[in-house]
Amino acid sequence: MKFTINRTIFTQQINNVQRAIPSKTTINILYGIKLAVSEQGITLIGSDADISIESFIATSDDIAKLNIEKTGEIVLPARLLSEIVKKLPTDEVEIDVDERFTATITSGNAEFQIIGINGNEYPRLPEIDIENQIVLPTLTFKKMINQTIFAASNQESRPVLTGIHLVLGENFLTAVATDSHRLSQRQIPLQLEKEQTCFEAITIPKKTMSELAKIVPDESELTMSVANQQIIFHFDQITIYSRLLEGNYPATDRLIPTTTETELVVNASDFLQAIDRASLLSHEGKNNIVHLEIDNNKVELSVKGNEIGNVAEEINYESADGEALKISFNPDYMKDALRSFGDILVKIQFNSPVRPMLLSSLEKNESAHNELIQLLTPVRTH
Amino acid sequence: MKFTINRTIFTQQINNVQRAIPSKTTINILYGIKLAVSEQGITLIGSDADISIESFIATSDDIAKLNIEKTGEIVLPARLLSEIVKKLPTDEVEIDVDERFTATITSGNAEFQIIGINGNEYPRLPEIDIENQIVLPTLTFKKMINQTIFAASNQESRPVLTGIHLVLGENFLTAVATDSHRLSQRQIPLQLEKEQTCFEAITIPKKTMSELAKIVPDESELTMSVANQQIIFHFDQITIYSRLLEGNYPATDRLIPTTTETELVVNASDFLQAIDRASLLSHEGKNNIVHLEIDNNKVELSVKGNEIGNVAEEINYESADGEALKISFNPDYMKDALRSFGDILVKIQFNSPVRPMLLSSLEKNESAHNELIQLLTPVRTH
Repeated sequence: MKFTINRTIFTQQINNVQRAIPSKTTINILYGIKLAVSEQGITLIGSDADISIESFIATSDDIAKLNIEKTGEIVLPARLLSEIVKKLPTDEVEIDVDERFTATITSGNAEFQIIGINGNEYPRLPEIDIENQIVLPTLTFKKMINQTIFAASNQESRPVLTGIHLVLGENFLTAVATDSHRLSQRQIPLQLEKEQTCFEAITIPKKTMSELAKIVPDESELTMSVANQQIIFHFDQITIYSRLLEGNYPATDRLIPTTTETELVVNASDFLQAIDRASLLSHEGKNNIVHLEIDNNKVELSVKGNEIGNVAEEINYESADGEALKISFNPDYMKDALRSFGDILVKIQFNSPVRPMLLSSLEKNESAHNELIQLLTPVRTH
Repeated sequence: MKFTINRTIFTQQINNVQRAIPSKTTINILYGIKLAVSEQGITLIGSDADISIESFIATSDDIAKLNIEKTGEIVLPARLLSEIVKKLPTDEVEIDVDERFTATITSGNAEFQIIGINGNEYPRLPEIDIENQIVLPTLTFKKMINQTIFAASNQESRPVLTGIHLVLGENFLTAVATDSHRLSQRQIPLQLEKEQTCFEAITIPKKTMSELAKIVPDESELTMSVANQQIIFHFDQITIYSRLLEGNYPATDRLIPTTTETELVVNASDFLQAIDRASLLSHEGKNNIVHLEIDNNKVELSVKGNEIGNVAEEINYESADGEALKISFNPDYMKDALRSFGDILVKIQFNSPVRPMLLSSLEKNESAHNELIQLLTPVRTH
């Protein structure tokens, strides 16, 4: 195989597929990027076996200035290829691979010979019959990922909780993530064509979702399709393949409280800063716990009695109604939850010191099924 | 003790003295910042026993808005104090210390109680009779540090080589650093008043020099004085105390070659980039070596025959004179040396494949004693 290409475009697409490449793996070939050159263009693939990212650069792409002399396939070490291409002296790169899979990479006076592997040895991507593609609202979908992903579990003991659970409703999509201490749920409206039911409910690994959120430009058209325990996202020239997580996702609906004993309305950003201050001392103690007390028109955060010292802060609030309350929680979880709302008024609903707190936006959204809620389990103290 | 102060100014000076505070130490009190409040102002001190940084905020400083109600001394945990002050909700901070050394830090509604230690228990700074202060050309002195410090050794087996060696000449100052594989030497002109001979030759720990270079603003008046195996730098409201390194610094003058068999003139920045590319492959091999060949009007860099591949690049040069030559070297050392010159033409003088290379600027400086040289020992290969 032999081709020349614009260095900047080649660097960009190497960077894109490199996101899938593992830092550690027992399958050596996965340290490589596969380059497959056809008459139509070059396909680059990076994979960690769970997630694969594929990028296609077409000969018809004017900016890429791709000129193919000879087709073929090779796998080259990803990190080295990326470093070399990034540092080459001119804007044009030539790659020429001989029959022994040695690639000669030339640009200006610089000439690298890199020993590669036959492209045949690279694992095949799943071939999937893509019938029911759903077009996603890219920006909202990315926001939904960022507003829920932090609540997904890091514990491999219950693998299904390490993902984001998506449920397809009639013209809306629900995302749920929980590590059993807290739960994030976001709904977004979704216009489906006809009888599009490519899935009912799936759980996607959080690494897939976080890479997707980083790599998709806001203005791209993003599609999603599901088949054979695989999900495929496609946008621009990029395709992301990922396995789905198996196992039954817990029924989270019944966890969401429907009653309220005490209701506090605060600015999410101001409250976040106060919690951040209090957490400076809770982080020094054995238990990372902040106390909240609502009583007599006074709302106070505090961390008490550890070896370093104490902190107390009376916080500003919009309204505080219902029963007096003392409750304790992990300030880092509360910070994550508050951060997902941005700088708006949030309503925090409490039932008792041992039952979950429910955070939601004070303003109801005009459109139906467009709501974010955060659920947080308190920490029992005494 | 009790005072109020502007939060921004307090944060800045906490950050300055915090630079001396060790991340690990066996002397617990050094994890703290000492605050000493007198009628004139507050002195902050951070120290790792080798280096101490002191900052003084005067009551006369309008921006600091320092208001002292009661004098006294306390040591507070540095990292926590810094985090708290940074995150306080208003621009004014009040610190009130009771007789049991508990500090109450108040700003807006937030109130922290932090347990401190009696300031008496903090190690004393050396009291030095500062007679002969030298005024340094701040910007040039900082540049001199940055152009030599990388060549200082990291090996504690010969402690004196871990410092920068300063020699005071008649109206010039020489800085030398060497790890015995390479050597950096920079001279700068220095106007001394009368018979100022505060020292002849001293060796300053490289940590002191790198912190100094980071912390001194370009436009400050910087002074230096030496006494009792201690060096003191002073600028603005900051004083840096450091021990000197003991031991005889090697006589480096005789290492600098006086003959030349081959001379190459290249642009330092272009040559640096070519070496950077070649080093991508030398880093993959067992020995981190790049070869340079000068022959028949051709100058070529190469890395050959490791398991990953090869690289060769014919480099652009301004002139190449003298004997043909093959020489090998550590590309990372060569990159450091080239980087110290910036984007100018440098002359590289060679004697043989086993004798040091001498790098210097092609243009002679107008002023005497204002020269940078870099010496680099080749790696023997055969």
